[in-house]
Amino acid sequence: MHQDHELTFATAVASHRQAALSNAEETAHEYYQASLLSAIMQGVYDGTLSIGELLEHGDFGLGTFNALDGEMIVLDGVAYRLDGEGKANVASDTDLTPYAAVIKFRPTDALDLTNDVSKQAFEAQLDARAAERNLFYAVCFTGRIKHIKFRNVLRQDRPYKPLLEVVKSQAEFELHDVDGIILGFRCPDYAVGIGVPGYHLHFISSDRKTGGHVLDYTLASGRIEIDHTSSLHLELPETPAFSEANLTAGASEDSIQKAEGN
Amino acid sequence: MHQDHELTFATAVASHRQAALSNAEETAHEYYQASLLSAIMQGVYDGTLSIGELLEHGDFGLGTFNALDGEMIVLDGVAYRLDGEGKANVASDTDLTPYAAVIKFRPTDALDLTNDVSKQAFEAQLDARAAERNLFYAVCFTGRIKHIKFRNVLRQDRPYKPLLEVVKSQAEFELHDVDGIILGFRCPDYAVGIGVPGYHLHFISSDRKTGGHVLDYTLASGRIEIDHTSSLHLELPETPAFSEANLTAGASEDSIQKAEGN
Repeated sequence: MHQDHELTFATAVASHRQAALSNAEETAHEYYQASLLSAIMQGVYDGTLSIGELLEHGDFGLGTFNALDGEMIVLDGVAYRLDGEGKANVASDTDLTPYAAVIKFRPTDALDLTNDVSKQAFEAQLDARAAERNLFYAVCFTGRIKHIKFRNVLRQDRPYKPLLEVVKSQAEFELHDVDGIILGFRCPDYAVGIGVPGYHLHFISSDRKTGGHVLDYTLASGRIEIDHTSSLHLELPETPAFSEANLTAGASEDSIQKAEGN
Repeated sequence: MHQDHELTFATAVASHRQAALSNAEETAHEYYQASLLSAIMQGVYDGTLSIGELLEHGDFGLGTFNALDGEMIVLDGVAYRLDGEGKANVASDTDLTPYAAVIKFRPTDALDLTNDVSKQAFEAQLDARAAERNLFYAVCFTGRIKHIKFRNVLRQDRPYKPLLEVVKSQAEFELHDVDGIILGFRCPDYAVGIGVPGYHLHFISSDRKTGGHVLDYTLASGRIEIDHTSSLHLELPETPAFSEANLTAGASEDSIQKAEGN
């Protein structure tokens, strides 16, 4: 029996929240993003922020690397490069990123998942859970994945093409019955151009050997943890390519959803 | 003779820049904003950030107060309320703001103005000066103003009407040949909904007795200082009114320009 619509909610992880509120952690509890998705859409694939600097602002998140050389996932303070062959490797602190978003992940809400649930049903349930729809949510699933489809961008050469062109030749992968982590952010609708409205999720297997940008999935069982924040930090690259980009042109919701495969 | 198009450029104030770069000041050199202009457009007029907290993040800027009770200007670390009678008074640290933007103003560029210049000509020149068009600029004029027209919003009662309704009954003022300060921000086009695309400027007289939200002006002579930043911090209010607002509806450029009188 396929029980898409039943999620079992567990107790909130209040202790984490307490920890987050103590020792001035709260002021650091911000969504920290390098550049804007609208810049990536326009082919601004070289940034100035190093992975080492990025990790000072968060231990959890996602992004990409300069020249669009693979997808990035940040988990437990480690940044992984998910390359064009689907392989995961720890990134160097000196690597640079043109776009990434991280947070010091301190979940305030958690739920256990015991039944198969599709992407659509899962995200609809999370939407209902994310009551403050104009804030930013971080979401992490850890457990058994029945099926996952993901893509990885491939390293680009100059002159860079816009992202919508690049993703036409992306590498796609599918896995069945794998243990892993799916994590990322839920951005409000108004944040189109800053990030991806709705869910932007990356995947890494539990053995840290494979992963990528999530296109579709069916979860089997595991635990979902949720965090949210009302503090946003955007660190824009001071580069000619960024300053010359037409960022209003890169901010349409339709084109972003196409590029991100939603 | 009316010499709109001649601005005399002075030496850059490099010493300020040096100061800004020392003692970790650079990391604090961010554009710090409470809430979003799209929320104000939708009538979200009550915020949770106090003026005292706001001033920890900047000594220069503009905004408004809860219930839209006057315009705000922040100059040399002091926040003034510019009320419905056009009068300026120092705001209380415990007053709250639903929308404000501040920066620790450390100009990196300055120019002397010796000829009359209209709003349009002045802003066109500043645009040329603001080469990195996708970053955020802070601008401050200090000197003689030939003519200025400004408006002040009036304290609202619940249920709040959208800003476009409110400004139909705003108080407007005009002054000629007055010494004063006009300051504010130049936001990139893509930041529509975050702030006002283009220039958002407030005015206070040199004697700190009158001021408001600038609608039009002709400058006579004085000094313009310019700062810019690639670091943005947005602090969103965790209130039901903010979370329930349709912020995509409040973000159209046309409606914002109408509300802000540009």
